[in-house]
Amino acid sequence: MSKATRNPGPDELELISRLKAKLPVGDSVVVGAGDDCAVIDAGVPGRWQLHKTDAVVEGIHFTKDADPQQVGHKALGRALSDIAAMAGTPRWATITLGLPEGFDVETVESVYDGMSALAKRHGVSLVGGETVSNPDRLFIGVSLVGEVDQDKCILRRGATVGDGVWVTGELGGSIAGHHLEFTPRLAEARWLAAHYQPSAMIDLSDGLAGDLGHLLNEANTGAELLESALPIRREARLRAVESEAAKPPLLAALTDGEDYELCFTLGQGQAVALLDQFRQEFPGTPLGCIGKIVEPLGLKIRQKTGIMEIATRGHVHFQ
Amino acid sequence: MSKATRNPGPDELELISRLKAKLPVGDSVVVGAGDDCAVIDAGVPGRWQLHKTDAVVEGIHFTKDADPQQVGHKALGRALSDIAAMAGTPRWATITLGLPEGFDVETVESVYDGMSALAKRHGVSLVGGETVSNPDRLFIGVSLVGEVDQDKCILRRGATVGDGVWVTGELGGSIAGHHLEFTPRLAEARWLAAHYQPSAMIDLSDGLAGDLGHLLNEANTGAELLESALPIRREARLRAVESEAAKPPLLAALTDGEDYELCFTLGQGQAVALLDQFRQEFPGTPLGCIGKIVEPLGLKIRQKTGIMEIATRGHVHFQ
Repeated sequence: MSKATRNPGPDELELISRLKAKLPVGDSVVVGAGDDCAVIDAGVPGRWQLHKTDAVVEGIHFTKDADPQQVGHKALGRALSDIAAMAGTPRWATITLGLPEGFDVETVESVYDGMSALAKRHGVSLVGGETVSNPDRLFIGVSLVGEVDQDKCILRRGATVGDGVWVTGELGGSIAGHHLEFTPRLAEARWLAAHYQPSAMIDLSDGLAGDLGHLLNEANTGAELLESALPIRREARLRAVESEAAKPPLLAALTDGEDYELCFTLGQGQAVALLDQFRQEFPGTPLGCIGKIVEPLGLKIRQKTGIMEIATRGHVHFQ
Repeated sequence: MSKATRNPGPDELELISRLKAKLPVGDSVVVGAGDDCAVIDAGVPGRWQLHKTDAVVEGIHFTKDADPQQVGHKALGRALSDIAAMAGTPRWATITLGLPEGFDVETVESVYDGMSALAKRHGVSLVGGETVSNPDRLFIGVSLVGEVDQDKCILRRGATVGDGVWVTGELGGSIAGHHLEFTPRLAEARWLAAHYQPSAMIDLSDGLAGDLGHLLNEANTGAELLESALPIRREARLRAVESEAAKPPLLAALTDGEDYELCFTLGQGQAVALLDQFRQEFPGTPLGCIGKIVEPLGLKIRQKTGIMEIATRGHVHFQ
């Protein structure tokens, strides 16, 4: 499971950027590869479609002995989280199962039970699937089509100097269990889009440093975060206490990944009203402003002892 | 590669039927799991969307030394063939790459080149993708959304006693090369839907016996085919000549799979006009009537020496 939260290697990043350059796209593609979902004008009046594909793989995203219902929950939940990042509503999913040799029918059924339960909760239809052989391990591919009102879709681009940086939930230590049980923030995202229209939004799957980095790159700005404002998950603190080899909690919150929370930016002057209304609407979902968008490029953390600069690929330089 | 054309085992078939029973579907789902694509009413006036997911896996659908551009062609082409089976137009694709350890960037780029070339030819936008680790082998998942006029969509169900059974192209021996180079019959299918409205249609991926079997099951009918009318691929005949262990050519045409041709049914009395017009429209695509839909259940082949009954899962009983 150590790879579960790994960032893509240099080969993979280079590959992705090379591949993106050669993808054919037509006029109906509002936003192609590079955001949380592709945004498509499919001819539905007033709405856009959101297209997303994702996969979880045995030994990478879950262990062989993980609860198969939770594995199914995670497989679909990750894609739902990407629809949430654009304030969309998920609608139709198709599943590709890569089945290992000697797979157990009951196990695979339980994976589907986990997916079906989550799908029902969010009104998603599971409209089809394919099974293929993937001899060495279970591979679960999920493709999801959602939709969003054209004037409510929130992209990664759009953050402006002076905006506050906000996150839902808590960060770090997801590996202790959260990564199999998280609740995709669909309702919260749609409510935010309807009432506050964040300037930019992303879901936190690769760690705050890397994912906020995407928002900053799109806007060509930097951000300054306040260490004391970061909502560090209890498990991240515990791990650091229990083992000297574990990441310090701050670093865990910035780079662990698999938080499946929302990170968004919002113009100044709305903080008090937002916090108040959000708490009433979603009493179970923490929300906090953790910093602001600034002009100088890069991601900085203000600590009691000074300023720490963070590489936005999750690699940390202490100054 | 011996598994490339295998039929699903009993475990897999049982699994699929168990899984289908528990899929949540909403009112927008016109046809869910069980046809070539799911048919969705996504709110586009006069049109339905077709949703499809599929995958090809190293060592199962292609060998490690296969030409990577052809592998990409095949990965996308299979999904295109399913859109063709419903007379649809493919529009937007998302790709999930499961990358093995130590993967070669150039190889993966070539896979994408193969997909991109085919996508461009058919006006498909590649709108996004995801890369994950699948340590032991390359896994290429393709999700495709297409569309079709509501009055032109052709399903697996609809065959009627007396209809002719038709196939495009040639059958059997695909493993000799066709499975990496085939042309999805998109143009042919749309033309057929526009001018002759077949009563039922499917693409041939698992072999004529199995796939025609799906049409027969849906209609609760049987079919009688004429051996001399079956368009057996030259490679299937050659393999039988070269090796006594190879399947007889007739059996190869019925069960080899990976033909990626259309099989459709059409009311009597239109054969001469169809053959004539189709030949003018698609001079490079063979088309023939191979038999007819009959009342008694089962699939029978009329040979010079008598009648052979075929199990529609590709398992053959000689009488």
